[in-house]
Amino acid sequence: MIRLKFSIDLNYEIVDYASDFILNIHAAQTRCQSVVEEQLNLSQPIAPLIYTDPTYGTRYMRLKAEPGLLAVHYDATVDIAHHTESPGRLEEVPIANLPPEVLPYIYPSRYCQSDRLHRFATREFGHLRQGYWRVQAILDWVRHRTQFLSGSSNGSTSAVDTIIEQVGVCRDFAHLMIALCRAVNIPARFVTGIDYGADPAMGPTDFHAYVEVFLGDKWYLFEPTGVSPPMGLVRIGT
Amino acid sequence: MIRLKFSIDLNYEIVDYASDFILNIHAAQTRCQSVVEEQLNLSQPIAPLIYTDPTYGTRYMRLKAEPGLLAVHYDATVDIAHHTESPGRLEEVPIANLPPEVLPYIYPSRYCQSDRLHRFATREFGHLRQGYWRVQAILDWVRHRTQFLSGSSNGSTSAVDTIIEQVGVCRDFAHLMIALCRAVNIPARFVTGIDYGADPAMGPTDFHAYVEVFLGDKWYLFEPTGVSPPMGLVRIGT
Amino acid sequence: MIRLKFSIDLNYEIVDYASDFILNIHAAQTRCQSVVEEQLNLSQPIAPLIYTDPTYGTRYMRLKAEPGLLAVHYDATVDIAHHTESPGRLEEVPIANLPPEVLPYIYPSRYCQSDRLHRFATREFGHLRQGYWRVQAILDWVRHRTQFLSGSSNGSTSAVDTIIEQVGVCRDFAHLMIALCRAVNIPARFVTGIDYGADPAMGPTDFHAYVEVFLGDKWYLFEPTGVSPPMGLVRIGT
Amino acid sequence: MIRLKFSIDLNYEIVDYASDFILNIHAAQTRCQSVVEEQLNLSQPIAPLIYTDPTYGTRYMRLKAEPGLLAVHYDATVDIAHHTESPGRLEEVPIANLPPEVLPYIYPSRYCQSDRLHRFATREFGHLRQGYWRVQAILDWVRHRTQFLSGSSNGSTSAVDTIIEQVGVCRDFAHLMIALCRAVNIPARFVTGIDYGADPAMGPTDFHAYVEVFLGDKWYLFEPTGVSPPMGLVRIGT
Repeated sequence: MIRLKFSIDLNYEIVDYASDFILNIHAAQTRCQSVVEEQLNLSQPIAPLIYTDPTYGTRYMRLKAEPGLLAVHYDATVDIAHHTESPGRLEEVPIANLPPEVLPYIYPSRYCQSDRLHRFATREFGHLRQGYWRVQAILDWVRHRTQFLSGSSNGSTSAVDTIIEQVGVCRDFAHLMIALCRAVNIPARFVTGIDYGADPAMGPTDFHAYVEVFLGDKWYLFEPTGVSPPMGLVRIGT
Repeated sequence: MIRLKFSIDLNYEIVDYASDFILNIHAAQTRCQSVVEEQLNLSQPIAPLIYTDPTYGTRYMRLKAEPGLLAVHYDATVDIAHHTESPGRLEEVPIANLPPEVLPYIYPSRYCQSDRLHRFATREFGHLRQGYWRVQAILDWVRHRTQFLSGSSNGSTSAVDTIIEQVGVCRDFAHLMIALCRAVNIPARFVTGIDYGADPAMGPTDFHAYVEVFLGDKWYLFEPTGVSPPMGLVRIGT
Repeated sequence: MIRLKFSIDLNYEIVDYASDFILNIHAAQTRCQSVVEEQLNLSQPIAPLIYTDPTYGTRYMRLKAEPGLLAVHYDATVDIAHHTESPGRLEEVPIANLPPEVLPYIYPSRYCQSDRLHRFATREFGHLRQGYWRVQAILDWVRHRTQFLSGSSNGSTSAVDTIIEQVGVCRDFAHLMIALCRAVNIPARFVTGIDYGADPAMGPTDFHAYVEVFLGDKWYLFEPTGVSPPMGLVRIGT
Repeated sequence: MIRLKFSIDLNYEIVDYASDFILNIHAAQTRCQSVVEEQLNLSQPIAPLIYTDPTYGTRYMRLKAEPGLLAVHYDATVDIAHHTESPGRLEEVPIANLPPEVLPYIYPSRYCQSDRLHRFATREFGHLRQGYWRVQAILDWVRHRTQFLSGSSNGSTSAVDTIIEQVGVCRDFAHLMIALCRAVNIPARFVTGIDYGADPAMGPTDFHAYVEVFLGDKWYLFEPTGVSPPMGLVRIGT
């Protein structure tokens, strides 16, 4: 078990009108991750609504802020018990046997156009040893071909753009890896967290985006950028 | 209450390898729609797995078919009790008050890039009377500007393409209407069904795609193409 | 006739390897614009190759710079004799009568996908009074729907993106106006210049992109952003 | 020298209005290709305007056809003297030394977004032996990764789409090869012709799209699909 302590500070300026926020900054409550203690401070006298997703333990905070400044401070101590498994047991699950709640994660999504990548992914990865090895090969391919460069992408950048332009930030690495997994029928999803142990050269502890892949009977964490040690990632959302 | 009876026949040829199918052809079981009787016939001796989504009542059938021909026949009699409401009571719900399970439907998706359409939708629809009238205005805009033309789009066509090219089939009308609704923070989602009463000039009874929008405290059906009377739509999936 | 004097200063840092530059900063030599005097200074001892396009009078300077700093200074005094014409004489030319050298400018290009905009442009502008009035209506439409915002686009942004996102800088306004003109068979092309008289709130005298449209028997200048008075534009290239 | 004889038959139905046509079906007149004899028949009594591009020898025919049927028949006998050269003499030309009239062919175009492919092409081809070998490697890469499939693309499909979807027809192979060449600063352009010796399995003699690349001091023909022997291509346009 690993105990990690972290804090987040966000500062907004709201102009003209009261604005709705949906924030996903609370540490998730999952089978592997428990919150030992946590603290939230808002600079405006607002009672936020916190909603916990019953399936994933993700916690969303909704609030309406008045015009002016809004400072959000959150800190938490979490205990994480990573489940590890030997590669040989991380097998791909035939579509016919996937649990129904996992099926949505083999379909394309806004940033992961796996439908367009079927030939591409089959040519690159179709012949590889299935399971952990194939997923790791996809991760290696993405990491090897994509340059990590701050500011190189924006909110419209998708997996197809990242294959073409070969540059991006953590969310782009994640979108591309997810799209390629789904294109060969491996369920994969986008996860956000705090990168406790990130390479300091990449900046201070910050939000991070990474990937979970469904193998055997569980979701396993993969970190395609290579800048953050997976053991230091605090799950926030999926 | 309306009672409708319909049948679906699908014919596949499976080459080389046994293939997985995920079919969504069963009539959904919802608060408004109940299946009086139904019948499924498969030309191969397969025991399909039928899964009912607990939230939406959508039924998915998974099966693995052997190489050769596969004929799927399904027919059903359903009773539909449409809930109708006067426009004045169909109000938009502020983000702060949306039920958590509705929130996913204000985010962009594979075919509905509402994130890119915020300025566009605000300029066209931002000043309109909110609620039913604004949704109806979006529907009218989509219907007026998009030509219904079989074969004019493909599986990669998205809302952004349809705005630009102004041509498509039912799924394209639906994707565009959904994207524009979400771009002004109105939850909207893609629904599939059987168009019992479709204009015969458009072909025989067939699958149809349309839209549900969350107003007041319910999802309401909108049919942007204008080719199918909403009262004749049998819900299959969402 | 107008006499304008301007200067350009560009500073580069070349790293690792000697680099090729193709610069288009010299005032063009056209029937309407003559260079009274000009001066070029380079901080490296390089003999640049200057090439004048025989058709358009555009002057390209090629040079190979060594690693280190490169400062380019250019200033010029130009006399411009704008040709003006009354709107009633600016007629559209039927495709059958277009001079052959004008034909390339009704085809789509990298940033002006007029092929995809045929229905769109026909619906918006197909019924309008032809000639100057229709071109002006396209200009007004672009100006009215597009927000000028520095940094809002990048080198991949095209006319289709700008219609959707409704934001951009001068080159995006120009690409969109050109694409819409070509989509209704009006030849249009991209022009670059120096915006001598630009609104100071938009920054110092700078490079500017605008549009020329072929009407009657000549190319006429249109400035879709509205930030630069057309009379103050010194032609550099097309 | 090779003597080839071919014919083209095109049939149109013009509805409602007289329509302008710009056809590029005449054999080009180039240094390597001369027209021994040719014949044109139109089923409507029209005098077409034929324009020969002074730079490339491409011949465009413009005509205005009345409502009803229009049949176009063209046949020609051409002599082609292919210039061949040993690979070792087909060197890339540094940008600084490219003839000015060749420069446009290193820039991106509607279907060849070389600007987005710089990292991609540099990673794949940047380290290869320059000249003929690098161009041939790009051709092999495109041919190996792209499936030739009739009807798999449309008039909007570009090089970026073809990299992603790995399927297309001759024009898509050509666009992709051109985009990759330009992305490493090798001038390349789109050429159309008649594929006299095409594999009969691919259908009858037809229009074909291929590529010319500027090496040494000339444009050389490359045929990325592999379905047509380069020696049997009659140049029509560029």
